[in-house]
Amino acid sequence: MRADVLVRGISQFVTAEGAEPKRGAAMRELKVVQRAAVAIAGGQFAWVGPERDWNGEAASIVDAGGCAIVPGLVDPHTHAVWAGDRLADFEARLSGVTYEEILAAGGGIRSTIRATAAATEEQLVALARPRIAALVRSGATTIEVKSGYGYAVEAELRILRAIHALAAQAPAWIVPTLLIHMPPAEAAEREEYVAAVCEEMIPAAAREKLAQAVDVFVEKEAWSATEAEQMLNAARAQGLRTKLHTEQFHRMGGLELGARMGAMSVDHLEACGAEQVAMLAASATVATILPGVTLHLGLPAAPGRKLIDAGAAVAVGTDLNPGSSPLFSAQMALALAVRLNGLTAQEALVAGTTNAAAALGLRDAGRIEPGLPADFAVLHGADWRELIYTMGANPVREVWIGGQKAE
Amino acid sequence: MRADVLVRGISQFVTAEGAEPKRGAAMRELKVVQRAAVAIAGGQFAWVGPERDWNGEAASIVDAGGCAIVPGLVDPHTHAVWAGDRLADFEARLSGVTYEEILAAGGGIRSTIRATAAATEEQLVALARPRIAALVRSGATTIEVKSGYGYAVEAELRILRAIHALAAQAPAWIVPTLLIHMPPAEAAEREEYVAAVCEEMIPAAAREKLAQAVDVFVEKEAWSATEAEQMLNAARAQGLRTKLHTEQFHRMGGLELGARMGAMSVDHLEACGAEQVAMLAASATVATILPGVTLHLGLPAAPGRKLIDAGAAVAVGTDLNPGSSPLFSAQMALALAVRLNGLTAQEALVAGTTNAAAALGLRDAGRIEPGLPADFAVLHGADWRELIYTMGANPVREVWIGGQKAE
Repeated sequence: MRADVLVRGISQFVTAEGAEPKRGAAMRELKVVQRAAVAIAGGQFAWVGPERDWNGEAASIVDAGGCAIVPGLVDPHTHAVWAGDRLADFEARLSGVTYEEILAAGGGIRSTIRATAAATEEQLVALARPRIAALVRSGATTIEVKSGYGYAVEAELRILRAIHALAAQAPAWIVPTLLIHMPPAEAAEREEYVAAVCEEMIPAAAREKLAQAVDVFVEKEAWSATEAEQMLNAARAQGLRTKLHTEQFHRMGGLELGARMGAMSVDHLEACGAEQVAMLAASATVATILPGVTLHLGLPAAPGRKLIDAGAAVAVGTDLNPGSSPLFSAQMALALAVRLNGLTAQEALVAGTTNAAAALGLRDAGRIEPGLPADFAVLHGADWRELIYTMGANPVREVWIGGQKAE
Repeated sequence: MRADVLVRGISQFVTAEGAEPKRGAAMRELKVVQRAAVAIAGGQFAWVGPERDWNGEAASIVDAGGCAIVPGLVDPHTHAVWAGDRLADFEARLSGVTYEEILAAGGGIRSTIRATAAATEEQLVALARPRIAALVRSGATTIEVKSGYGYAVEAELRILRAIHALAAQAPAWIVPTLLIHMPPAEAAEREEYVAAVCEEMIPAAAREKLAQAVDVFVEKEAWSATEAEQMLNAARAQGLRTKLHTEQFHRMGGLELGARMGAMSVDHLEACGAEQVAMLAASATVATILPGVTLHLGLPAAPGRKLIDAGAAVAVGTDLNPGSSPLFSAQMALALAVRLNGLTAQEALVAGTTNAAAALGLRDAGRIEPGLPADFAVLHGADWRELIYTMGANPVREVWIGGQKAE
C-alpha cells in the first residue's frame, strides 16, 4: 500500500466500529488499538492498526510522540451564528431572574434575534469564525450549525448562507440546519408565520440546498407539537430530514412527535420522564443531550444514564449559543456528560463521535476506519481517557481534518 | 511620571479596592474604569486610570486593542505536585464506586502518595510545570501549591523543595503550603506520626523556610479536629500560619477549630450547615470554596451564596489535584462558582482575586492598584464579564506577571 502520510508512534487509538448508532451496553464497547499507526491517502484513512503490522510505503511520516489519538469529535448541536451578546441577561440571571422569565419578557433570545437579523452575512461569518475555531481546537472536526436567530424568512436564509460561507472557510466539516426557533410574539400571527415557514422558508432552503435538516423548538414559549408537526411535514415533503428541540423545560409532545416521525434526533430532554425514555429506546431516533445547558442554567440534567440503560442511542453536543450554553468546547461537553449525565468515559466518546454523526444522518464521520475521512485529534497524553477526564484545559494537542492538520 | 511600559487602549479594567478581604455585599462592589491605561515601573503598577488622564512618559507603549483587563487571578488552593495518574479511579467512580469507598479501600489518594513518594524532586518539578503553565494561561498569577502526597517526613520535605524549585522557574508567584493530608493506615501509628509532624516535619519546614502555612485535612478518612489542633498549634509555635481542609463530606469540628484559631482559611465546606455559615461570617477566617470538586465528584455545592449573604469573605480555588478536581483553569473555577455556588460575576471576581489573596495572607496580590506587582490578564473581549461567562474556551489572551508578559 502507498500512503500520502503515515502517522506512527501513537500510544493508542480508540474508535467505535461501524456506522450504526450504538445503543445501550454497546456504547461501552470501543475498539482500542495499542502502539498504533494510521496511514492516510487522498484525505482518507487508508490503513489503521498496530504499527508493527504496517508494511506499506508513505510519502511522509509524522511521529505522534507516544500520544493517543481519538476520532474527530462530532458536535451535533450548535447555534454558532449569532450577533450581539447576552452578558446583561447573564447578570440578570445570576441575580435570580429565570431563563423563562427573560424569554417571556421578550428579552433573552429575542434580543439575539434583533442583533442577528440586523447583521450582514459577512458580519455573521466573521463573528462565527472564532467560535468554530474554538470548537475545532477542542477536537471537533464535524460541526452542525443551526440558523434560528433570524426569524423573518429573509433573515433565516441569510444565516443559512452565512453558514455556507463559513463552511467554505472553516477547517471543519459544517452541517447546516434550518431551525424554526421562536414564534411571533403575537398569538394571532402564528398561523401566518407557520404558513410562511412551510411555503417559503423551507422550500427556499431546500431549493438552494442551504440546509440538510429542519429543526423545530417545541416549548411553552416556543412552538406546540402540532405546529412543529406541520412544519416538519413540510420539511419532509421537500426531502429534508427532521430534528426537534424538545423536553427542555416542559413535556409538550415534542419527543413523542420525533419518535413517531422518525426524526434523526430529539435534543435537550432535561424534562424527559421514564415512559419517554422507554419510547426513545424503542425508536430509531437519537437522544441528543446538552450538558452545557444544565451547567449554565442550573437545569436538571437530561437522564443520560437512564437513556443508555434503557437501550437508547445517546449523543452529546455543546449547544453552543449565547443565552443558554456559552460552551466553546466539544471536549468539555463530553467531560460534562460524565459528570452531569452519568455517562462512562467510553459512552461519552461514542456519544461525541459515531452517535453524534448518526444524529446528523452521517455514516462517514466520528470513526477511525479505512475509507473514512481522516479526521482525528492527537492528545497531549498517552491515555485516551484524558479526553474525558480533563477539565479547564485542552487535552487536544492537534486536530487533523480530511488528512490535513488544522491550524 | 516616568514609566517603563504604558498599556493603553484598555476597554475597561475592573478591580476590588483595598487589601482587606471583602465580605457580604461588599463582594459586589467593584471599581470599573472605562477606556483605561496602566503604567508599569519596576514591575509594579505605577499609575492606573482613565487613559485621557495619563500625562507621564513611558519608555515603551503597548496597545491592548480595546480589550478588557482584570487583576491577575489568585488560585488559593492547589495540589499541583503529584506523580502517577488517577484514570483507573476515574473509571471506577464512573461505574459507581464512591470517592470515600476508594479512599477507604486504600486506593485513590494512597496510590498517588505511593507514586509521588517514589519520584525525585526533579521529576516532580517536571510533572508540575505544565500544570502551573495551564493555570497561568487561564489568568492565574499567584498560585498556592500544597505538599501532601509525600506522607513520610522526608517525602513531604522533598515535595516542598520541588515547589520551591518550581517557584524559581514558574512565571507565576508560587505560595507553598505544607499539607498534612492522610494519617497512617493503622490507627496505632497515628500518635507517633502526629509527633513526627509536630517535632520534625513542621520544624524542618519552618527552619528551611519551605512553607508559609500548614494545612490539615479534617475528615472521617483523614484527621480528627483534635489531631488537627495539635498539629496546627505546632505550626503556630514555629511562626507558620494555618489552614484547614474541612467539611468536605462530614462535619467533624474542623470549621469550628479554624474559626476559633483564626486560621487564614477553611477550605471545601460542601457539608457546611447554617450555624456554621453564621460562625464563619462572624470570624476572621476566609471561606474557600472549590467548585471543581462539586462538578467532578458530584458532591453538593458549598453554600457560596449563603456564606456571602451571611457576611462571610468567600474565596474560590481550583483544588487542582488528580483525584477530586482535575481542573486546570482558575478562570473555569470562577465560571463554575457562579453556576454551582450561586455567586454573581462580581462576587466571583473578588473571590478569585483579593479574597483569594487574603486566604493566603497576601495584601499585595489580586488588585490593579499603584504600588502593587503589575499582575493582570488581558482578555480577548472588551467586557470583563466574559471572564466569568465563558465556558470551555480561554477568554484570557495574555497574562502579565510582575510587569512582564508571561510566555
